[in-house]
Amino acid sequence: MEANEQKYAADISSIKEAHERIKPFIHKTPVLTSESLNSISGRSLFFKCECFQKGGAFKFRGACNAVLSLDAEQAAKGVVTHSSGNHAAALSLAAKIHGIPAYIVVPKGAPKCKVDNVIRYGGKVIWSESTMSSREKVASKVLQETGSVLIHPYNDGRVISGQGTVALELLEKIQEIDTIIVPISGGGLISGVALAAKSIKPSIRIIAAEPKGADDAAQSKVAGRIITLPVTNTIADGLRASLGDLTWPVVRDLVDDVVILEDGEIIEAMRMCYEILKVSVEPSGAIGLAAVLSKSFRSNPSWKDCKNIGIVLSGGNVDLGALWDSFRSS
Amino acid sequence: MEANEQKYAADISSIKEAHERIKPFIHKTPVLTSESLNSISGRSLFFKCECFQKGGAFKFRGACNAVLSLDAEQAAKGVVTHSSGNHAAALSLAAKIHGIPAYIVVPKGAPKCKVDNVIRYGGKVIWSESTMSSREKVASKVLQETGSVLIHPYNDGRVISGQGTVALELLEKIQEIDTIIVPISGGGLISGVALAAKSIKPSIRIIAAEPKGADDAAQSKVAGRIITLPVTNTIADGLRASLGDLTWPVVRDLVDDVVILEDGEIIEAMRMCYEILKVSVEPSGAIGLAAVLSKSFRSNPSWKDCKNIGIVLSGGNVDLGALWDSFRSS
Repeated sequence: MEANEQKYAADISSIKEAHERIKPFIHKTPVLTSESLNSISGRSLFFKCECFQKGGAFKFRGACNAVLSLDAEQAAKGVVTHSSGNHAAALSLAAKIHGIPAYIVVPKGAPKCKVDNVIRYGGKVIWSESTMSSREKVASKVLQETGSVLIHPYNDGRVISGQGTVALELLEKIQEIDTIIVPISGGGLISGVALAAKSIKPSIRIIAAEPKGADDAAQSKVAGRIITLPVTNTIADGLRASLGDLTWPVVRDLVDDVVILEDGEIIEAMRMCYEILKVSVEPSGAIGLAAVLSKSFRSNPSWKDCKNIGIVLSGGNVDLGALWDSFRSS
Repeated sequence: MEANEQKYAADISSIKEAHERIKPFIHKTPVLTSESLNSISGRSLFFKCECFQKGGAFKFRGACNAVLSLDAEQAAKGVVTHSSGNHAAALSLAAKIHGIPAYIVVPKGAPKCKVDNVIRYGGKVIWSESTMSSREKVASKVLQETGSVLIHPYNDGRVISGQGTVALELLEKIQEIDTIIVPISGGGLISGVALAAKSIKPSIRIIAAEPKGADDAAQSKVAGRIITLPVTNTIADGLRASLGDLTWPVVRDLVDDVVILEDGEIIEAMRMCYEILKVSVEPSGAIGLAAVLSKSFRSNPSWKDCKNIGIVLSGGNVDLGALWDSFRSS
């Protein structure tokens, strides 16, 4: 292991181990290309379609690795999370496959489709109030009562290692990629991708795509420390979390740039995913395409060197009604 | 060549030759699976995603094979069609790749998005009145003036051979498939798929999926001759054509059954493609999933033997506004 890898919660070895562990359970998602989108962007784009992953998002990779990393005694008592999004569904599914209980603390008022997903995958829903303090309190109670293990949605080395397998598969398939664009929220996906990709190909550029209404990662990079926002406001509901103490060092050191996108740009990219790429993505999933089409990235001095760009379409869990409303109001 | 293969406009040899010819130009489209849809249907489903094909539909395979089969002198004069749907866009794209002109006769009133596709792929649009006689008359005139070659959307051995490559790729990837469900319209796709699949695996079942408002193939099978309908009425706008004299013998002899679907069933399947499989399909593309979920197929005596089912998601070219209206009115 090289010295610089020891600094982080995951490294290329833990990511490769994760891949071996989760391979029998995950979908090796396809990489799609579109000459129309290449022509529009002026670049060769390679879309890693994690919307086709089990549970509809990359989250299953990390959740699956975390669950499969538990020893038998730990595992038998089950796992807990108080995320109500894609991680909750992914953890429920991973636990179901492993035959152990998943306790999902869900705040009152969470979207019905997300709660339905958790139930469909066999997660046990435990309601809390909508505040973070209530969610944490209820989760603590569950942990005490059941002896189960908390699996954080991103601030966990096992989860980061699992998410990094996206980059292993992408670079195995398309060696000529020189840039990877990854949506950023809590930083689990981009940390795993950056650690894997820069180990395999040190010259690769890792670009974070972040919505303007939740641009805490960009602010953190400028400040040199984790910035959390009191309020977030974006259509990309999967990208509102703040960096954790395990993801921040990776984002600080290995993410080359953060591109900030307006909601309108995200919606337009989402429409192109549906109409041109024929892929159903959620707003958070489309933000990477929005980045390559944005003025802010295209006026960046590094743009001229970004020729073969990997874009992680991170997820596809969207309510069709809400989707349509966003198209119409944009 | 076996005796029974000589009866038809294509055979396994012409289909394999087509595959070699078009391989450098087509997308080898992924086969997606969904445990949720397996659980809902009670079967193992394998979705061959031709919506990700160039031009957004399987049509590019046949058009590409037809164009590449022309000798240099023929090719230089270009190709013509009077289809205004996916075949027109596919033929334009195939001609563009080959560097020859494509003349597309388009009836006045054709949907703008389809005309836009033709133009985007470099086809030369020539307007006609909306009647079939006007379309044929204008096409004849173009043929005479340019010396170009008419490429029929389905009643053409080169086109049928190209479409059959869908089955080669599907069965190469998933050997255990025992049934393939294919949308039926003019019969080009299902003829190619049936000829390829039954040659590779004689026990395989080939099921046509057809909308109730354009059930001419089902009626033809009953009557023992080609039936054409004076009027068709279905949301599956790609499935309104009648069988041709080259596709009918294959459909008559090699298609085991025709499942008829209501528009409501097609729309529900389309919604599942978006929400569960995360794939954008057009109504015609979703009809195979509608079939495996339909009472009519599930009460068919052969259903119990259909365990591993290949479903061709034939295309994804849909206007998002029209799509949404169909979801809301259903």
